[in-house]
Amino acid sequence: DNSVTKKYTIAVIPGDGIGKEVTPWAQKALEKAAEGVAEFSYEQFDLGAERYLRDGAILPEDEEERIKKTDAILLGAVGDPRIKAGILERGLLLKLRFDLDQYVNLRPSKLYKGVTSPLANPGDIDFVVVREGTEGLYCGAGGAVRRGTANEVATEVSINTAYGVERVVRYAFQLAMKRRKHVTLVHKKNVLVNAGDMWQRLVDKVSAEYPEVSHDYSHIDAATIFLVSDPSRFDVILTDNLFGDILTDEAGAVVGGVGYSASGCINASNEYPSMFEPIHGSAPDIAGQNKANPTAAILSAAMLLRHLGFDEAAARIDAAVEADIEELGSTVRSTDQVGRDILARM
Amino acid sequence: DNSVTKKYTIAVIPGDGIGKEVTPWAQKALEKAAEGVAEFSYEQFDLGAERYLRDGAILPEDEEERIKKTDAILLGAVGDPRIKAGILERGLLLKLRFDLDQYVNLRPSKLYKGVTSPLANPGDIDFVVVREGTEGLYCGAGGAVRRGTANEVATEVSINTAYGVERVVRYAFQLAMKRRKHVTLVHKKNVLVNAGDMWQRLVDKVSAEYPEVSHDYSHIDAATIFLVSDPSRFDVILTDNLFGDILTDEAGAVVGGVGYSASGCINASNEYPSMFEPIHGSAPDIAGQNKANPTAAILSAAMLLRHLGFDEAAARIDAAVEADIEELGSTVRSTDQVGRDILARM
Ligand SMILES: CC(C)[C@H](C(=O)O)[C@@H](O)C(=O)O
Ligand SMILES: CC(C)[C@H](C(=O)O)[C@@H](O)C(=O)O
Repeated sequence: DNSVTKKYTIAVIPGDGIGKEVTPWAQKALEKAAEGVAEFSYEQFDLGAERYLRDGAILPEDEEERIKKTDAILLGAVGDPRIKAGILERGLLLKLRFDLDQYVNLRPSKLYKGVTSPLANPGDIDFVVVREGTEGLYCGAGGAVRRGTANEVATEVSINTAYGVERVVRYAFQLAMKRRKHVTLVHKKNVLVNAGDMWQRLVDKVSAEYPEVSHDYSHIDAATIFLVSDPSRFDVILTDNLFGDILTDEAGAVVGGVGYSASGCINASNEYPSMFEPIHGSAPDIAGQNKANPTAAILSAAMLLRHLGFDEAAARIDAAVEADIEELGSTVRSTDQVGRDILARM
Repeated sequence: DNSVTKKYTIAVIPGDGIGKEVTPWAQKALEKAAEGVAEFSYEQFDLGAERYLRDGAILPEDEEERIKKTDAILLGAVGDPRIKAGILERGLLLKLRFDLDQYVNLRPSKLYKGVTSPLANPGDIDFVVVREGTEGLYCGAGGAVRRGTANEVATEVSINTAYGVERVVRYAFQLAMKRRKHVTLVHKKNVLVNAGDMWQRLVDKVSAEYPEVSHDYSHIDAATIFLVSDPSRFDVILTDNLFGDILTDEAGAVVGGVGYSASGCINASNEYPSMFEPIHGSAPDIAGQNKANPTAAILSAAMLLRHLGFDEAAARIDAAVEADIEELGSTVRSTDQVGRDILARM
């Protein structure tokens, strides 16, 4: 009976390289997990390198408008060596994050049983990075003068607003309440004194509303050490756009490879759809070879479900992934084999 | 006969916390290594937290003028939890790096025999980070409006000049010629398109003068992965001020702790003295307990000697350190014991 299941439209943007291989598996997992609970229809968007090379379009306005009307977005990966760095990233991926005001970039890191960490003694790794997604050095507010001459000056500007920072700080403390109740602010406030000071003041302010949550601070350089020397110290890491980008890739490596790391670009006020994507890139070197691990993409489908309120359906995906990794994580399998194995467990 | 040994004046700035415990050992190693080769006199500078708390002085002009007249600087560490983040760092450490135009921040990372890396399979790690030292986000070119209100905006500006970038790029290629002839540029040119594009263009330009040196590029996020998954791929890493700060701390962790990592802030044109310091901080948690490892400070004395042209004297320190670590690296020793052990081998 359709009247009891809710209906949602999901925008699917496979993107480039292995994005195209892993995203169908995320969609299949979504579909299967939602059976009897929600009804999804999908709108496929042909965006990324091939489209750009074909007709020069990166994110046409009408397509963005259609994406804005969906309930959530599944994205694969964007980037292609044939295209100058920045064009697709800024024109498509970052444009969506910014235009859809996805101010929380949520990136869990967990060391699964069955995965070999590159660390000799990894300990229990289970933390979430709450990365700000709409400000900082990602604004595109730089410029250059006398380009190509000996007198060239190029700038990049990090813009941080109390409005933008406070909302993501609050999100981190709320998330910590559902976890081990600890927030670590990561910044470089001994050098970036203007932005760092504001981040710290807003953490101090918001923390007063969450007396059960403890919080501390780490410089970004020290945090990269802790991720290697003592990653289990972290519960919720709260940080800005650039530091979050760096820390989550390092974290992905520490938990055995970004092949297991999913992420959500979340508009926590729900004015626009949120977007879910693996944190890995398009990996041109292994693209088209049915080699990429679809696990991170499948885990991002679980994040999508959780975001829409389907906690049980999300938990079914998570449990299937966890069991799959524990049993078969160390075997070499094709993209499709991993996808089939995970779906079979759901 | 004094007339055959060259005379040098070394400014010694022990700074804060463990800086005060390790710097005397760096000075002793310097003294011993230079015996019969060079004659050093030392000027001690009481700069850092205690001085600041005592009389409010951070880097008085006349003292900076005296420092400028020396031949090289030995620095310990700067920073104290009693003082707001940024005051000493920017007023003393970064002020010296900038005023003395120390545009090459040279940071070798080597996994010594006898040191346990936190990585399960570290491989042969031996690379150098060439970090730009006088530009980027470290310029202090940010600001804030409506501070403390809901409408606060705080900015940080990364300033990059062709002049400043090209000279450090050239230094990296020259250094690569003396090593394994490979340079990896690390940046985030898919997001920081203005600065990233300039860095890449200048690398491409300078590389034409060094046809024997191969070069590649890695985004900063990917580089933090490689440092964990495949650190032996790197020979010379060339990067900007902030990325260099982050990568060298992570690299320090990967080679078994920043206790073994020395650094030079080098004015490669020799208009002003260069400065040598361990990359670790003042470590207030273990300060005053005779626990800090003086190895990194001692290795920075070797870098100082090499900078002044005393390669053999530098090699004596390096060899003593290497032998000490190989034999005793895993034993728990006091600061003074490690210092004595290394000196005894020289
Ligand atoms: C592709 C790139 C623009 C992006 C970023 O820097 O945010 C990626 O690295 C990520 O982490 O999602
Ligand atoms: C203390 C701090 C300002 C400094 C830096 O960021 O450069 C330190 O982290 C370093 O790496 O030497």
